[in-house]
Amino acid sequence: MTQHDENTRPADTASATGEAATIPTEKVTGWWATDIARIHPGEIALRGYPVEQLIGRAGFADTIWLMLRGDLPTPGQGRLLEAALVSAVDHGPQAPSIAAARMAATCGVGLNNAVATGVNLLGDVHGGAGQQCMDLLARLHTEVAAGETPDAVAARAVTEHREAGRHVPGFGHRFHPRDPRRDPLLGLLTEAADAGVVPGDHLAIGLALEDALATGRRRPVPMNIDGATALIYSELGFAPELGRGLFVLSRSVGILAHAWEERRSGTRIKGPIPRPLLADYTGPDLRDVPTTPPQH
Amino acid sequence: MTQHDENTRPADTASATGEAATIPTEKVTGWWATDIARIHPGEIALRGYPVEQLIGRAGFADTIWLMLRGDLPTPGQGRLLEAALVSAVDHGPQAPSIAAARMAATCGVGLNNAVATGVNLLGDVHGGAGQQCMDLLARLHTEVAAGETPDAVAARAVTEHREAGRHVPGFGHRFHPRDPRRDPLLGLLTEAADAGVVPGDHLAIGLALEDALATGRRRPVPMNIDGATALIYSELGFAPELGRGLFVLSRSVGILAHAWEERRSGTRIKGPIPRPLLADYTGPDLRDVPTTPPQH
Amino acid sequence: MTQHDENTRPADTASATGEAATIPTEKVTGWWATDIARIHPGEIALRGYPVEQLIGRAGFADTIWLMLRGDLPTPGQGRLLEAALVSAVDHGPQAPSIAAARMAATCGVGLNNAVATGVNLLGDVHGGAGQQCMDLLARLHTEVAAGETPDAVAARAVTEHREAGRHVPGFGHRFHPRDPRRDPLLGLLTEAADAGVVPGDHLAIGLALEDALATGRRRPVPMNIDGATALIYSELGFAPELGRGLFVLSRSVGILAHAWEERRSGTRIKGPIPRPLLADYTGPDLRDVPTTPPQH
Amino acid sequence: MTQHDENTRPADTASATGEAATIPTEKVTGWWATDIARIHPGEIALRGYPVEQLIGRAGFADTIWLMLRGDLPTPGQGRLLEAALVSAVDHGPQAPSIAAARMAATCGVGLNNAVATGVNLLGDVHGGAGQQCMDLLARLHTEVAAGETPDAVAARAVTEHREAGRHVPGFGHRFHPRDPRRDPLLGLLTEAADAGVVPGDHLAIGLALEDALATGRRRPVPMNIDGATALIYSELGFAPELGRGLFVLSRSVGILAHAWEERRSGTRIKGPIPRPLLADYTGPDLRDVPTTPPQH
Repeated sequence: MTQHDENTRPADTASATGEAATIPTEKVTGWWATDIARIHPGEIALRGYPVEQLIGRAGFADTIWLMLRGDLPTPGQGRLLEAALVSAVDHGPQAPSIAAARMAATCGVGLNNAVATGVNLLGDVHGGAGQQCMDLLARLHTEVAAGETPDAVAARAVTEHREAGRHVPGFGHRFHPRDPRRDPLLGLLTEAADAGVVPGDHLAIGLALEDALATGRRRPVPMNIDGATALIYSELGFAPELGRGLFVLSRSVGILAHAWEERRSGTRIKGPIPRPLLADYTGPDLRDVPTTPPQH
Repeated sequence: MTQHDENTRPADTASATGEAATIPTEKVTGWWATDIARIHPGEIALRGYPVEQLIGRAGFADTIWLMLRGDLPTPGQGRLLEAALVSAVDHGPQAPSIAAARMAATCGVGLNNAVATGVNLLGDVHGGAGQQCMDLLARLHTEVAAGETPDAVAARAVTEHREAGRHVPGFGHRFHPRDPRRDPLLGLLTEAADAGVVPGDHLAIGLALEDALATGRRRPVPMNIDGATALIYSELGFAPELGRGLFVLSRSVGILAHAWEERRSGTRIKGPIPRPLLADYTGPDLRDVPTTPPQH
Repeated sequence: MTQHDENTRPADTASATGEAATIPTEKVTGWWATDIARIHPGEIALRGYPVEQLIGRAGFADTIWLMLRGDLPTPGQGRLLEAALVSAVDHGPQAPSIAAARMAATCGVGLNNAVATGVNLLGDVHGGAGQQCMDLLARLHTEVAAGETPDAVAARAVTEHREAGRHVPGFGHRFHPRDPRRDPLLGLLTEAADAGVVPGDHLAIGLALEDALATGRRRPVPMNIDGATALIYSELGFAPELGRGLFVLSRSVGILAHAWEERRSGTRIKGPIPRPLLADYTGPDLRDVPTTPPQH
Repeated sequence: MTQHDENTRPADTASATGEAATIPTEKVTGWWATDIARIHPGEIALRGYPVEQLIGRAGFADTIWLMLRGDLPTPGQGRLLEAALVSAVDHGPQAPSIAAARMAATCGVGLNNAVATGVNLLGDVHGGAGQQCMDLLARLHTEVAAGETPDAVAARAVTEHREAGRHVPGFGHRFHPRDPRRDPLLGLLTEAADAGVVPGDHLAIGLALEDALATGRRRPVPMNIDGATALIYSELGFAPELGRGLFVLSRSVGILAHAWEERRSGTRIKGPIPRPLLADYTGPDLRDVPTTPPQH
């Protein structure tokens, strides 16, 4: 199928009028070049590895690492990534990403469309705290590398956020006094740092932030899922923007599970609230459209 | 920018190994050919009309017709299309398309993403009845053209649907005893048929369906918004699938308005129900993960 | 309509265990309150106007204004909005929004999903310049209101952008030396300002920016579609974020038309380039997966 | 957890005017009931398992199974699922799902929006063959259970498809003469069937289909990725619709990797083909908009 008649001379379609301009074929190809997948008839290689070798030898989380980073993780790295991916799969149907996917599943679209609907909502506000926490950690990490202590940079960061009236991303939860995912994730990360799997310097900064946030307050503001996974992803060397990307892969599982539960139930056109409970209308009273309406 | 060196000989990159196969440039171009827009430096023409002439001369609804049909509508056609587009812009925040868009708007994504979220839900079930009604009308129209009366084909269609336990698409509303959009839409369509703007034969079938549905029942099952707009779009010669497409353009207005209302309110992470009201959990009781978990 | 039976005793809203917390029913309702649509059995009112009056009396562009602004436009306002909506419907299949929608249409999803796919891409970079231009205009408008001249604030803004290595949003086009949509849009806006339909102060700033950009250069950097529509929307009093929203409504028309053209062609699984022309692979050479793979 | 204060008197659910109808609070809750996640302050349980136990003990693929099926898989089941998920992560940027996501990533939207864009395209045609193959396998499985042989039902199914001019879903590939993912996937499935991990009856039907397709032809039509994963998912007891759902989770990895590669490259507004190569315009010649345009 890739044989090519050497005698084929591509037509020169350019003309003085500018119609049907062309560019050399090799530029067309280069515009869609990639480092990720090498596809030829009978051959699929991902980051250079033949897919037939990956099947059965590499785990799914390992393959995620491979696709995003360019090579397979070490066992210790893979274990941390896998734990972080597991931790964030779901937080119930109040989350708008889950709710929107459930609603989509009742509207006659495919499960792929339902998952896309949910994933589309994981923006700066809903799920974005992980990426923001990674950005903060990266900045503080630079300051520590310049000679400051984690405690000092953390205290300053907390003060700055408080003065600006902003939350420190990755800390506190409006529902859980203490996020139940914090301890097992930090436990695994601490083990990994102790074993030399990861450097542990971001971990130190994260804990310093938690301490700084607790200082002088009756109630601590413990790390939440966004903060704990941000620490793991930062220690593993992922770019902050991939913090959101990995959360998308993780939460897609919950989104799919909920969309599927809704599909099987047979509900049609599910809204946020059952039909009889009308949404309040708070706008102007009934009025007439002008009989000489805007025309143009 | 469209000058092209006639001496450029596209590299023949095919090889025995199958790497970097190419195809002639003109095929690459033809793969993205279109009848709709003619774009050259300094020139934009839509269906042949220079955009600078359309601006100010053509209405927005006329331009929708032009883009989908290939030429501008007559005034009578344009008036019907405009009325149908106006009629379906919104049905409040219980509609999952509107609700999902409102939820999206609180999640830190752009208004474009919020609108896409809502539009994505307008599938076979939520908004698809118009297309299904147009399919039905087209089938019955063929039967009438073959010599049957509208009453006969309508009665048979109603019987078939009832025996199959299915609703006739475009009739009845689970919320409105009589859809307030039916009368003004059918009024305009009747006027247009009387004036020869449209043939009126689909209208006759639609009214016959309404009659057949009411026969032998205490309560009628009047045409709803999907049925009334399906009649108009069918009379205007739109393909059934465009019934859904036009509904998408119309409802996008309501989706945008609601997403914008939510954005301005500053709500963050809006779920289907306020947070304190937990969704019921109906699954298995708490249990322990096996200490020798599934490993592989 | 927000009257509430005073005798309703909301259930206890919290408990010591936090389980099954509830909130009063009226809060559930209020969480989905809206100023836009009033929906009751047999009644649909948009911004207070009965939908049956809007049908046939209000144009589609007028209804867009009504839904976003809360009341109907004057004829002059409606004419400007309509022209701006018409101007941006399409720019051909190279635009990623159009191309992605065409690709979607060949993948077995609904036209609604195809439109959503295209709309989803109209972000900060592709289509966002209009919103950014409106933000800039709003800032300069404030400076003019504080006593400076349009020329002075425009010159300073251009200098700032140049020093920062940034384009002034809304000016220049990488394809059109002069955007053919500029002149007719500014012509209509100038007429409207002369007739007192709009104040004209944003227009003055926009023209001053164009002058400042041309100063000292051999080639001018004329206003493009984003800039010209930004001027119109700003003069009409729309918030900058709605600049993007209105662009979404306008470009949805082109997205639908292109998706429909692709659907009718029967193409299946359309990629960016025809299949035989493989994308270049630029990653690592073929290699073996370790026989003792990462396991955990 | 579903205990309810018996003294709560739900407000009257309807009124003569129909305005402000309400429903009892417990119904509002039930509308969003779920078997999947149990969320309380300080507690997150997935299918009954505390998330803090799943973290570190369960793999990511195991958790996918848990969320979709209700309990953890056995090691053998988990291994098969993991292999199938790994096999389908990517097939390069010609795939419209990947291409659209890459284009999205250059348009100023978040990585979540880019992934959603790609996932949205995995419909009946692009990625849907797996689900269709599972539907076919389920039907043939019923026929075998009724006493026929796999060979007999397979031969009849192939004949039916050929007479209808349709492809048998899951077999043949327009690019790969033999899909390189077929052999390793079927190898693992055969091992699992031999070990009693799965019954193996769907496998027998799949192989019989492959044989029937090869009969009387010079070239075989070997199973492709859709067919091989459909066999695995069917043997594992997944519903056909989840075939698509699992493909979505798998391909999301490639979509994210490609979107991220594009993001890092800094490309802006990537279209299907580089800008200088204009899409062909094949519509009507330039013409004037009527000077007495359609008005209404």
